[in-house]
Amino acid sequence: MDAVRLVELNAAYARIIDNERYEEWPGLFHDPCLYKVTTAENLATGLESGIIYADSRGMLEDRISALRQANIYERQRYRHIVGLPVVTTHSQDVAEVETSFLVVRIMRDGKMELFATGCYRDKVKPDANGALRFVERIVVCDGGRFDTLVAIPL
Amino acid sequence: MDAVRLVELNAAYARIIDNERYEEWPGLFHDPCLYKVTTAENLATGLESGIIYADSRGMLEDRISALRQANIYERQRYRHIVGLPVVTTHSQDVAEVETSFLVVRIMRDGKMELFATGCYRDKVKPDANGALRFVERIVVCDGGRFDTLVAIPL
Amino acid sequence: MDAVRLVELNAAYARIIDNERYEEWPGLFHDPCLYKVTTAENLATGLESGIIYADSRGMLEDRISALRQANIYERQRYRHIVGLPVVTTHSQDVAEVETSFLVVRIMRDGKMELFATGCYRDKVKPDANGALRFVERIVVCDGGRFDTLVAIPL
Repeated sequence: MDAVRLVELNAAYARIIDNERYEEWPGLFHDPCLYKVTTAENLATGLESGIIYADSRGMLEDRISALRQANIYERQRYRHIVGLPVVTTHSQDVAEVETSFLVVRIMRDGKMELFATGCYRDKVKPDANGALRFVERIVVCDGGRFDTLVAIPL
Repeated sequence: MDAVRLVELNAAYARIIDNERYEEWPGLFHDPCLYKVTTAENLATGLESGIIYADSRGMLEDRISALRQANIYERQRYRHIVGLPVVTTHSQDVAEVETSFLVVRIMRDGKMELFATGCYRDKVKPDANGALRFVERIVVCDGGRFDTLVAIPL
Repeated sequence: MDAVRLVELNAAYARIIDNERYEEWPGLFHDPCLYKVTTAENLATGLESGIIYADSRGMLEDRISALRQANIYERQRYRHIVGLPVVTTHSQDVAEVETSFLVVRIMRDGKMELFATGCYRDKVKPDANGALRFVERIVVCDGGRFDTLVAIPL
């Protein structure tokens, strides 16, 4: 699978979130899909439960509706810096990919903080139109300090 | 426009600044040009005034002269981490491109801090020799806490 | 030299360290080689002594053994965010490359901090199998505050 297209997918994902165009986010996934936010520690100890879990586009859309209603997006937003994708396995038309990320959180008063780092563990394949979309995106965070509600997608 | 060449332009831009070779910075722009540093908040509220504004190579060169005379460069420097460019529109030979960035400021005593994050909104086209140069680089910072004088180019 | 292959080499390097698979790290170097961690200030003042110095794979392997025995790896790990490589010179099959990096340190309790930024100054060439490997990797750190023992490779 073309590295350039994987980079474009990652860049589009980050741009949608950082520009607060959250409604476009579910469209980057297949349906059904798997989106999960967890920590390296949870993974290592076999703790299956993640911080966030969704297995369909509908669930992703529900998250965004809840986010908009809670007006979380008015109080904070993110800036993603995404590393280069490493394709770990590649069969037929599904690629497994790992990509490092760093997220800075910006509060409305302009205060910035290093919010999260980690690794996206993805399964990616083209949709019917040939556009790359996520079958799975497991967001493995390095740190373990999260708000009980991580409302904005990582 | 070739993604690899956009990446090279961005890498060259960051390297010139991070290596404190500021005199080479104006050469990455067309003449006339537009270089502006502003914030997402300013843009959203339609506030036209940016933190920094220059519309010719001469103005960019003046900034660097002032920077050298003020000896600001002796007290701090930057490290840019630049994301992957997203080409948003592309007509004839001008590309509009958005690229996330993160800048760490390093003081002479070795203290580092997360200084700025944001998005470059660029218009890029080749010069007479075919080298990509900026027609416009609008530096949209996420945060709003800047020194009254942001002397080193972002 | 293909930019994509340089990016892959950098991504593989970061992934090995961030996934704590340190034993695979020496394999990314030629033998003999040069691996050095130093600071911009040391370089500028001509101070030859770096923080870390190794000139063979064996020395790199010794570092990892020491790291494992000290159990440093149980207390902290890194997350690298690596920029785009800039090829500065390119003769025959050796490329000289500069690449910005940022490293976040994650402690076992989940605390994260911006640990180091800087520039990799590399000499890279293919090995007998055609795989790109480091002849030299000089890690030039921006800041100067290091633990007396920087145990995990940067």
